[in-house]
Amino acid sequence: MADRGVESALKEFMAERDWDQFHSPANLAKSVAIEAGELLECFQWSDDGDPERVQEELADVLTYCHLLAAKLGVDADEIVLRKLEQTRAKYPIDRSRGRSAKYDQL
Amino acid sequence: MADRGVESALKEFMAERDWDQFHSPANLAKSVAIEAGELLECFQWSDDGDPERVQEELADVLTYCHLLAAKLGVDADEIVLRKLEQTRAKYPIDRSRGRSAKYDQL
Amino acid sequence: MADRGVESALKEFMAERDWDQFHSPANLAKSVAIEAGELLECFQWSDDGDPERVQEELADVLTYCHLLAAKLGVDADEIVLRKLEQTRAKYPIDRSRGRSAKYDQL
Amino acid sequence: MADRGVESALKEFMAERDWDQFHSPANLAKSVAIEAGELLECFQWSDDGDPERVQEELADVLTYCHLLAAKLGVDADEIVLRKLEQTRAKYPIDRSRGRSAKYDQL
Repeated sequence: MADRGVESALKEFMAERDWDQFHSPANLAKSVAIEAGELLECFQWSDDGDPERVQEELADVLTYCHLLAAKLGVDADEIVLRKLEQTRAKYPIDRSRGRSAKYDQL
Repeated sequence: MADRGVESALKEFMAERDWDQFHSPANLAKSVAIEAGELLECFQWSDDGDPERVQEELADVLTYCHLLAAKLGVDADEIVLRKLEQTRAKYPIDRSRGRSAKYDQL
Repeated sequence: MADRGVESALKEFMAERDWDQFHSPANLAKSVAIEAGELLECFQWSDDGDPERVQEELADVLTYCHLLAAKLGVDADEIVLRKLEQTRAKYPIDRSRGRSAKYDQL
Repeated sequence: MADRGVESALKEFMAERDWDQFHSPANLAKSVAIEAGELLECFQWSDDGDPERVQEELADVLTYCHLLAAKLGVDADEIVLRKLEQTRAKYPIDRSRGRSAKYDQL
């Protein structure tokens, strides 16, 4: 239920512009990847990205994520929390603590 | 304030595993891009991605987005809404309605 | 003409499997992005990627790049060299030397 | 040996600008992903990307791939051909013909 405000604001914005027609799941997945590339560009040559620009690019990634969640009929927060439970099972605290290794290499 | 539940759940999860040390903004931006690639893979050869898998990959993208927002000290919903206002100014309804063109080509 | 060996090897491989039908420019562009994400994963938590794995992922990115070049009917080396000339004009040596700034900020 | 022309042209270009200092493998992998996002943007809302723009973006991806290959001390064509042999083993003609399924689902 967390994102009700964001999701309804986005929905209204898109409806006003009749943009829903472009927002197939495949196009939204491409858009997420494109914006993720722009976010990454903030860190292309340095680990210190300009915070203002990072925020803007992150907002773009999140926007398309929310549009895709809405298109799938799922709640963005709920799927994050559900996935977190799966990740919890894959990465038991005692074996994963302080390590960045993938679960199949723990 | 929308994501309070998600952000605190993620924070607790990471603290238990002492993973915060890996989560520099640059590493999180890379992680967003990596997961965005996996989301895109659901649509590599077809516009019909398996909804279950799409949800899981979308959840991974969102998870790293939330971690990056937390690291920047910003609220994920707030930056989306703020960016939406900027986009509103760039894409006036009368000129952008029903068109997928970029703002500089409207 | 540089990649004749690679391009003809890839062409034969794809023909044997009748995979050309999947290789629309759009699908190949998605594939390049997906494999670029896997390449990036080698450096997700550290700047020291395993060289063997980096090579393999880089090979995957290059493979889809070559397939896309072939689909467009262009030579992969030629377009790199042509773009290099454009970049040369954008980044004069005297202003760009030792700087990672974008051309519009030089 | 295929890319000798491209690799030496790139090497000279970078040396003139003293840009090699920015080209760590990690930075080059990020650059490949960033440019792959720009290539994908040509197909964001449609499967018909503008061929001129597609070529330019593809050239950018290839450029960073070549720089990364050079940094790793490997030949770009050789790693593609070597990987092709591995893929050949994973995708026997009789089981993969006309199918886009992953090798573990054949």
